[in-house]
Amino acid sequence: MRPFLAHPFDDDKLHEECGVFGVIGMADAANFVALGLHALQHRGQEAGGIVTYDPSVGFCSERRFGYVRDNFTKASVMATLPGTIGIGHVRYSTSGSKGATAMRDVQPFFGEFSMGGSAIAHNGNITNAESLRKELIERGSIFQSSSDSECIIHLMARSMGRTIPDRFEEALRKVEGAFSVVAMTRTKLMGVRDPLGVRPLVLGKLGDGWALSSETCALDIIGAEFIREIEPGEMVVISSEHGVQSHFPFRRMKPRSCIFEHVYFSRPDSILGGRSIYETRRQIGVELAREAPVEADLVCPVPDSGTPAAIGYSQESGIPYAMGIIRNQYMGRTFIEPTEQIRNMGVRLKLNVNRALIKGKRVILVDDSVVRGTTSRKIKDMILDAGAAEVHFRIASPPTAWPCFYGVDTPERSKLLAATMTEEEMCAWIGVDSLKFVSLDGLYRAAGEANGRDNNSPQYCDACFSGEYPIAPSDMIEKGFEMKAAE
Amino acid sequence: MRPFLAHPFDDDKLHEECGVFGVIGMADAANFVALGLHALQHRGQEAGGIVTYDPSVGFCSERRFGYVRDNFTKASVMATLPGTIGIGHVRYSTSGSKGATAMRDVQPFFGEFSMGGSAIAHNGNITNAESLRKELIERGSIFQSSSDSECIIHLMARSMGRTIPDRFEEALRKVEGAFSVVAMTRTKLMGVRDPLGVRPLVLGKLGDGWALSSETCALDIIGAEFIREIEPGEMVVISSEHGVQSHFPFRRMKPRSCIFEHVYFSRPDSILGGRSIYETRRQIGVELAREAPVEADLVCPVPDSGTPAAIGYSQESGIPYAMGIIRNQYMGRTFIEPTEQIRNMGVRLKLNVNRALIKGKRVILVDDSVVRGTTSRKIKDMILDAGAAEVHFRIASPPTAWPCFYGVDTPERSKLLAATMTEEEMCAWIGVDSLKFVSLDGLYRAAGEANGRDNNSPQYCDACFSGEYPIAPSDMIEKGFEMKAAE
Amino acid sequence: MRPFLAHPFDDDKLHEECGVFGVIGMADAANFVALGLHALQHRGQEAGGIVTYDPSVGFCSERRFGYVRDNFTKASVMATLPGTIGIGHVRYSTSGSKGATAMRDVQPFFGEFSMGGSAIAHNGNITNAESLRKELIERGSIFQSSSDSECIIHLMARSMGRTIPDRFEEALRKVEGAFSVVAMTRTKLMGVRDPLGVRPLVLGKLGDGWALSSETCALDIIGAEFIREIEPGEMVVISSEHGVQSHFPFRRMKPRSCIFEHVYFSRPDSILGGRSIYETRRQIGVELAREAPVEADLVCPVPDSGTPAAIGYSQESGIPYAMGIIRNQYMGRTFIEPTEQIRNMGVRLKLNVNRALIKGKRVILVDDSVVRGTTSRKIKDMILDAGAAEVHFRIASPPTAWPCFYGVDTPERSKLLAATMTEEEMCAWIGVDSLKFVSLDGLYRAAGEANGRDNNSPQYCDACFSGEYPIAPSDMIEKGFEMKAAE
Amino acid sequence: MRPFLAHPFDDDKLHEECGVFGVIGMADAANFVALGLHALQHRGQEAGGIVTYDPSVGFCSERRFGYVRDNFTKASVMATLPGTIGIGHVRYSTSGSKGATAMRDVQPFFGEFSMGGSAIAHNGNITNAESLRKELIERGSIFQSSSDSECIIHLMARSMGRTIPDRFEEALRKVEGAFSVVAMTRTKLMGVRDPLGVRPLVLGKLGDGWALSSETCALDIIGAEFIREIEPGEMVVISSEHGVQSHFPFRRMKPRSCIFEHVYFSRPDSILGGRSIYETRRQIGVELAREAPVEADLVCPVPDSGTPAAIGYSQESGIPYAMGIIRNQYMGRTFIEPTEQIRNMGVRLKLNVNRALIKGKRVILVDDSVVRGTTSRKIKDMILDAGAAEVHFRIASPPTAWPCFYGVDTPERSKLLAATMTEEEMCAWIGVDSLKFVSLDGLYRAAGEANGRDNNSPQYCDACFSGEYPIAPSDMIEKGFEMKAAE
Repeated sequence: MRPFLAHPFDDDKLHEECGVFGVIGMADAANFVALGLHALQHRGQEAGGIVTYDPSVGFCSERRFGYVRDNFTKASVMATLPGTIGIGHVRYSTSGSKGATAMRDVQPFFGEFSMGGSAIAHNGNITNAESLRKELIERGSIFQSSSDSECIIHLMARSMGRTIPDRFEEALRKVEGAFSVVAMTRTKLMGVRDPLGVRPLVLGKLGDGWALSSETCALDIIGAEFIREIEPGEMVVISSEHGVQSHFPFRRMKPRSCIFEHVYFSRPDSILGGRSIYETRRQIGVELAREAPVEADLVCPVPDSGTPAAIGYSQESGIPYAMGIIRNQYMGRTFIEPTEQIRNMGVRLKLNVNRALIKGKRVILVDDSVVRGTTSRKIKDMILDAGAAEVHFRIASPPTAWPCFYGVDTPERSKLLAATMTEEEMCAWIGVDSLKFVSLDGLYRAAGEANGRDNNSPQYCDACFSGEYPIAPSDMIEKGFEMKAAE
Repeated sequence: MRPFLAHPFDDDKLHEECGVFGVIGMADAANFVALGLHALQHRGQEAGGIVTYDPSVGFCSERRFGYVRDNFTKASVMATLPGTIGIGHVRYSTSGSKGATAMRDVQPFFGEFSMGGSAIAHNGNITNAESLRKELIERGSIFQSSSDSECIIHLMARSMGRTIPDRFEEALRKVEGAFSVVAMTRTKLMGVRDPLGVRPLVLGKLGDGWALSSETCALDIIGAEFIREIEPGEMVVISSEHGVQSHFPFRRMKPRSCIFEHVYFSRPDSILGGRSIYETRRQIGVELAREAPVEADLVCPVPDSGTPAAIGYSQESGIPYAMGIIRNQYMGRTFIEPTEQIRNMGVRLKLNVNRALIKGKRVILVDDSVVRGTTSRKIKDMILDAGAAEVHFRIASPPTAWPCFYGVDTPERSKLLAATMTEEEMCAWIGVDSLKFVSLDGLYRAAGEANGRDNNSPQYCDACFSGEYPIAPSDMIEKGFEMKAAE
Repeated sequence: MRPFLAHPFDDDKLHEECGVFGVIGMADAANFVALGLHALQHRGQEAGGIVTYDPSVGFCSERRFGYVRDNFTKASVMATLPGTIGIGHVRYSTSGSKGATAMRDVQPFFGEFSMGGSAIAHNGNITNAESLRKELIERGSIFQSSSDSECIIHLMARSMGRTIPDRFEEALRKVEGAFSVVAMTRTKLMGVRDPLGVRPLVLGKLGDGWALSSETCALDIIGAEFIREIEPGEMVVISSEHGVQSHFPFRRMKPRSCIFEHVYFSRPDSILGGRSIYETRRQIGVELAREAPVEADLVCPVPDSGTPAAIGYSQESGIPYAMGIIRNQYMGRTFIEPTEQIRNMGVRLKLNVNRALIKGKRVILVDDSVVRGTTSRKIKDMILDAGAAEVHFRIASPPTAWPCFYGVDTPERSKLLAATMTEEEMCAWIGVDSLKFVSLDGLYRAAGEANGRDNNSPQYCDACFSGEYPIAPSDMIEKGFEMKAAE
Repeated sequence: MRPFLAHPFDDDKLHEECGVFGVIGMADAANFVALGLHALQHRGQEAGGIVTYDPSVGFCSERRFGYVRDNFTKASVMATLPGTIGIGHVRYSTSGSKGATAMRDVQPFFGEFSMGGSAIAHNGNITNAESLRKELIERGSIFQSSSDSECIIHLMARSMGRTIPDRFEEALRKVEGAFSVVAMTRTKLMGVRDPLGVRPLVLGKLGDGWALSSETCALDIIGAEFIREIEPGEMVVISSEHGVQSHFPFRRMKPRSCIFEHVYFSRPDSILGGRSIYETRRQIGVELAREAPVEADLVCPVPDSGTPAAIGYSQESGIPYAMGIIRNQYMGRTFIEPTEQIRNMGVRLKLNVNRALIKGKRVILVDDSVVRGTTSRKIKDMILDAGAAEVHFRIASPPTAWPCFYGVDTPERSKLLAATMTEEEMCAWIGVDSLKFVSLDGLYRAAGEANGRDNNSPQYCDACFSGEYPIAPSDMIEKGFEMKAAE
C-alpha cells in the first residue's frame, strides 16, 4: 500500500508535512492547482489531492499516492476535475495513521452541509486536535481519517452558522496550533493562517483570478503576481464578485513565523517575510564564515540544500567554491522495495564524491542542518575515502535539539544528535576535523534582524533550536513530553 | 507503449544513446549491474536491461521501459536474475524502430550458439550496420530487433570460431563505427572499444571481481577501484581463472575520443582520458571568461549542466556566482500524457527564476551548449520577465553545427541553430544582449591540450563542431547526407 | 475509474444489487469471507469489500473494484485482513453516485464510536433514506458516500445506546425498506432482515464459528452447516461467548419475501424459504408446459438462467431437451473499452447457436424473464439465421411490468417491454412464432403455493409483476413515481 | 511473470495447446482475429498474440498473457494493429520453456526475409523439432524462443525459394508431426494441415474476405460462412487476387484426425469431419446408456463438459436429467496467488452440489474423461457429503492410458490413472458404486463409424486410448519414452 520509501537519508532531515494551494476564477482550475502543487512538491512527496467544483457536475475529487507529475497531469485524470475553482494538497506524511488505510488521510477533506459542500486542505498541526476529536465522536460525528484537520470540517458541520464562511470562522475559533488552511465552497476560496503565522500562506493574482499558496514559487509557475502574505491570524474569503475579504477570528498576537522555513523548508526562489529565501541562506554562509573561519582549499556544499550557504561562505572567506559532491539526478525518491544489498548502499545511491577534485585537499563541507547526524558521518566517510586531507563541517543552522510540534516531522528528542551531545562530542562522533554551527543570533541576523534575536520577545518561532515553544503542545504534553525547564 | 515523454526541453540537448556495464566474479551480480546502470542513467533513460547467468538456471534476462531505480531494484525482479556474472544496458532511444515494438530493441541481446549462449550490450553506432544486416538476412538470419548491435550476435552465430571469444573477435573485424560493447558468456565477461576510442569504456576491480563500465562514476557507486580505460581498439576477455586478457582485433589508429563527453555527456564526477570531467568544464568557464569577458553583476548557470563552467567563469572574472535559476527537483522526466495546457508550460515546469535576486541585475548566463536554441529563448524570456537589466549568454562549447553519427541523438542538420545562423544572428534570434561561444581551441585547451587543436591531426572527434568526420558515416551518406566540402 | 462494462445483454436483466456475508469465531476470517463472497458474486460484480478486526491491529479494511477472485485472494491482500471476525460485501451498482467517486460507495462502511468501532454491509434499499440523510446532515453529520446504508452508521453514532448492539437496534427502528444487513463490532457479528423479509439472510455454523450469508450456497463453499433463515424482522447478535441472540426491533408483519429471488436472483443450488431454487425453477418449466404447450422438435434454454425451466418444460412436454445455444465460457464480464466494432457484436460475443442442431427444427426457447426485450430479439435473429423452422419463446416468469424499489436495479418503467405492450404485441415485436409467460398463479404454484397467489394477502412480494408495492417507496413517490391505481 | 495459475482441477483434464485464426480481405482485420480468438479461447487461455500488416506501417504485433477479452479489445491496443490481413494465436502452454522468459514463446512468430516479412502461428507439435533446431543452430540461426514452431520460420529464412509461399512449402517438407499452421505475408494468408489431419483447420468466407480457423465456431462469431475443412496434408495460399490455391507438399496418407477433438477439445457448437460435435457427444451418452445401464434416480453432468453426454444418457435410459452440480460462473481462471487456505478449497471454488436435489438419490454422474482421477474423487466426496444414496460414474471416453505427443498437454504416463489401474481398481480408488467407460467401438460409432473402429486401419488417431501412435514421436523416444509393445 505504501508506494514509496523515504529517501535513504531523508531520515536525517526535518520534513515539512504539507503544501497547500488553491485558485478561484481560472478556467480549468485543476491544471493551475496541479502546477502549483508541483512547485510545492518539496513540502510533501507522499501523496497529493485536488478538489474542484463545477456547477454541472458538483464537487470532484482525486487523491493519490505519489508525485503530482505522475498523477495530476494525465489528461484522463484532469478531465475528471472540471471547474474554475479548486484546492489541492501535497503531504509528506501525517500525524495520523501509518500504513494500510492511509489513503483516507490524503487531503483535501470534504463535507456536505445542508447549504452545500466544502473542502479543506491543511498544512501544520492543530495542537488540541485529540481533545476536539474525542468530544466530537462523543456527540456522534464519524471521523473518516486519522488526520487532525478533519476536526475543522466536523466543527463546521455542527456549527449553526448560516453560511459556510461563517461556519469556517466559528470552527477556527475552537482550534489551537500552527497551521495554514485553504478551503473552498462552490463559489468561494478561503484561506487562514494561524495567529502566530508559524506556517506560511501567500496571496497571488492572475488575470481576474486569485491564488493562495504555501509559497511564492508556486505563484511563479502559474505566472501569477505575488500580492502579499496572508497576515498571521487572518482569514480571507475570496469570491469573483467581492474579491478578497479579510476576517480576523483570533485574538491578535505578536507574530512568530517559523525560522526553519528560511533555513530549509521553503524553496530558495520563494520570498517569505519580505526576504529572498536564497539570499537569507547565502547570508547564513557569510555569517558562518565570520563566526567559524578555517583555513582550507575548497568550500563544497552538501547538495542541494547546502548550496546557497556554501556560496556565501566562499564569497566571505575567499576560499574557492567547488562541487565536491555530485548528486545523482535520477534518484527521485529512493528505490522501491529494494533488495537488502541495495538498501545498504544508502547515501551512495544519491551522492558521489568528485574524487579527482577532493584528493589531497582541505575541504569545508557546508550543510543546512544536522538532525540525527548519520548522514554527516557517511558523507565524511566518502570524502575521506576519496583522499581529502581535512574535513571541516559548517552547518547553516544552530544545533537542532528539540522536536517541532507544529506540522513538521521530527524524530523524538532522544534521536536528535544535538539533544544528547555538545558540539565537541558531535564533532568527535561524526569524525571530522572541525564542526561548527551558525549561532542563533547569526541566523537571526542573516534573516534580517540586524540586532539578532530579541530574547525577551523572539521574532521567530525557533523552538527546534531553543526549546521555547510559543504554543503549548497540549496533546503532546498529555502524552508525556517534557518541556524545557524555565531558566 | 512509450511510457515516457522526453523532457520539455530535452529536445534542445544532444543525447548520449546508451550506457553499458558488466561484472564478473561478484555474488548477486545483478545488484551490482543495477547500481552501475543507476549511476549511468544520465546516458539513457528510456529503457534498461540486465542479463545474468547462473549454472543452475541458465541465462536470465529482464528488459524494461523506465528508470533503473523503478525496475531493477524490486526484490521480486532481482530474484529472477541470479548468478555471479552479468551485463546491463540503459538506452535513450535507438537508431532502430520507434513506437509499438520498441521493447524488442531493448538490450542486452542474446544468442544461443552450439557451444553455449552469449549476450551483448552496445553503446554507439555501427556505421555499416545496414549493409551487414542486408547480407545476413539474405543468408537466412532472422533479426528480432531493428538495432544495429544485433548484427554482432548474428555474425557470431555464423562464425566458424571454436570459442565464443573467438567468434566475438571475428565478428568485430567486420563492423565499422564508434562503439563500446560489453558481452558475456557463461564464464567470461568481454568488452571492446572502437579503434578510435570515440565511445568510452573503463575497467574496474572489486575484490576478486571485475567490472566494465561506460564511466568511472559507476565504478564508484559499487565501490570498485578504477584500474584503467580500455584502450581504443582493445578487446578484453575477463574470466575468474585468467583475469583480464587483451586482444586487438582492429588495425591500430590514432585515437580520437569524443570531446562532447567532456562538454556534456559524462557525469562531472567521472574521469575520462586521465582528466576530471568537472575540472575540464570549470576550465572551459575560465577560457570563456578570458575569450568573452563582459561587465555584469552576476554569473548564473543554466542548471545543472552549466554549473561547472559558470563557477569557472565567476572565478576567472571575479563576478559573483549566484543561483539565478532554480531547478525543480521533482521534475525527473516530464509529465506523462500531459494536458495541452500543462505541456505548454514547457520550461517552467522545470526551472524558475530567482526573482528577488535577478531584478535589476546584469546577468551572465552560462550554458553547456546550444542545439536548437529554443530553450535559450525561453530562459531569456523568464530572466527578462523577472526584471533583469541585461542578459549575456556564454556557451561552454563551440557552435553545434553538424549532426553526430556515432551513437548520439542529434536533430537533422537544418534544425541545428548554428548550422543556419552566424553568432550575431543567433544572438538576435535568441534576443539577448550578447552571445558568445568558447572557441574550438579554447575547448581543447580546457581539455588539456595546451596548444589547442592540432588541425592536421585533431586529438578528439569534434565532428559536431567542425564537420570533420573521422569515420565515414556510410549508411548515412547512402541516404543522402552531405559531408562538409573539403577546404 | 469504472473498470468493467456491464454484460452486452445484462442491460436486459434485472440485477440484484448486493450480497453480504459475515463470520465470527474462525481463524483467518477474511479467507472465509472471501470464499463466501465468491459464492455470492452473481449478486454483484462491480466491487467488493471486506472488514476484519484483530485485537493487535484494530479494524482492517480493503475495498476494491472487480471480482472477488481477482482481489481477495492474493496473499498480499489477505495478509492485511487479520482476525477471527469479519464481514464482506459484493455489489452490482448503487442507488448512489455513478462514476468517478464511486469507490467511496463500496461497502462495508465503518464508524468509530466512543465505545469502539463498527462496520456494516447492506443488501437492499432503505426507502426513507433521503429524508433520514437530510435530517442527519442538518444536525451535523458528514456523509462520506452516497449510499443509503450510510444512514444506519450515522444513526448509530448519534444514538445514546450504551453498547453497539443497542445502538444498532435503535438505528434500525428508524429505517424503512427492504434490506438485509450484516454488521460487526470488535467481538460481535450482527445481522438483520427487514420486517417483510424481502431480502434473504441465512445463518450457518462451522465448528465453533458462525456465518451469516445472503444465500445458502455461500455456506456450502466454506463447508458450514445451514442452520436456518434469519426471520423477517429478526436481528441477531452473535458472539463467541453467548452464541446467537435474537431481537425483534420492528413491528411484526406478515412476511412477503421477494419472488424474483426464486425466478432469477438466487443461485440454483441455494435453498430459500425451505425450497430448492433449482427445483422451483424446474417446476416453473412444468407449469409453463401445462399452460402454454406447443408442438415442436426441441426445447432449448437460453443459457444459463433458462436451463432449469427448460428441463422442466421438456420433462412435462416430452419434447427433447437440447443445447441449441452455446455460451462462451470466457466471456466473464464483457470486453473492457471495446472498439465500436466489437461492441456491436453484442450478444454474439457471449452466445453462439448450435447450427447443425437447430437447422430445420421447430424450437422452443425457454428464458427466465423478459425485461427490455432487446436480447430476446437478437437471440431470435441468431436462431433464424441458423435455419430454425419455428421459434417459440416461453418465459419462466410473468411479464415484468413494474420497477423494483427494494434493492434491485430495474430500468425505468417506460423501458420495460411489458409496461407498454400486450403479450401479442411483444410477440410481434420480438418476431417469434409464439410468446408465452407463465401466469402469476403458475409461478406461485411452482414456488410451493398449491393454490396459487392469495390475492387478498399475497404470500410474496411480486411488485415487479403486479405493481402492488408492500412498502411505500416514499423517496420515489416524492420524485414523481406513479403507483398503480387501486382497482 | 506467470499471471495465471491453472484451474484447480484443470490438472485433471487434457489440454489442447493452441488455437489459430487468420483473415484476409477484411477492413480492420485485427478485430476479426480478436473475435475469432475469443471464440477459440477454450483451446488456450495462457496467452495470445495477433500480427497484422498494413502497407503504411508494416507488420504490427501484440503478444500478451491473459485472455483475449482482456487484451485484444481495448481500442488503444487494437489501434496498434492496422491492416486488412492478420493472424492470431491463443495458447495453453508450450512444449518450450516455463516461467520467466515465456513471453518470447508467445506466438505468432515473425521473420524478415529479403523479399519481405512473414508471420506464423501453429497448433500442434513438430515431432522432429529438436533435431531440426540443433542443426539450424549449428549453421548460425539464432532462436528467440523455445517453441518448436520457430523451426519453420528459420527453415523459411534459409530456403532458396523465390517467394514466401515457396519457402513455406519447402520448410514444411522438412517437418514431421501433427499440426495446423496459419501464416501470412504482406499480401497472402496461408494455412496448412498435417498429412494425417490430426489437428483441425477450416476455411470460411465473409464478403470478399477469407478466414482460416481451428474450429467453425470462430467462423460463426464473425458471421463468416463455413466453406470446408482444409484437407489433411493440404497447404492453401489465399490472396485477394487469386482466391484460394491448394498445394500438397506432403506424401498422401490415409487421414486419422484426433478423436479427442470430438470428446472434449472442440466446442460443442463446432462442426468437425462433417459432424456436429454436440451431437457426437450426445450420441456417446446414448452409447454409454446402452453399454453401461444402471438403475438410478437422476442423470447429472459434471459441468460443463459432461453435459451433452448426460443428456444423451438420460434420453436413452429414460432416467431424468438434472443439474446436480452447479458451476460458479465467476471462476474464470482460478484465483491469482491464492493463500494456502484458498488453494486447498480446490474444486469447491468452482463447483457446488445442489444438495436439496441430490439428497437420498441414486445419482449417475457423466463426465467426459478421467485423466488423473483426482477431480472425480473430490466430486464423489461432494456428492456423498450432500447425502446421495448411490453414485455411478459414466465416462464419455475410453480410459486415457497413453500420453499425447501431438500438441496436447498430457501428464506423464505414470500419472494417468488408467495406465496403472483396471476399471475395477479405478472404481475402488475413486470410491463410487460403479464406474464405466464407453468402449472404443462405442466412441467410434458415436463419431459416425457405424461399424466401430477398423482395427487394421483406424479411422481416427486414438493414441491416448489405444497407445497406437500414427506418427513416431521421435524426440520423445530419444528421451526414453517406451512405446506400447506390438501385440
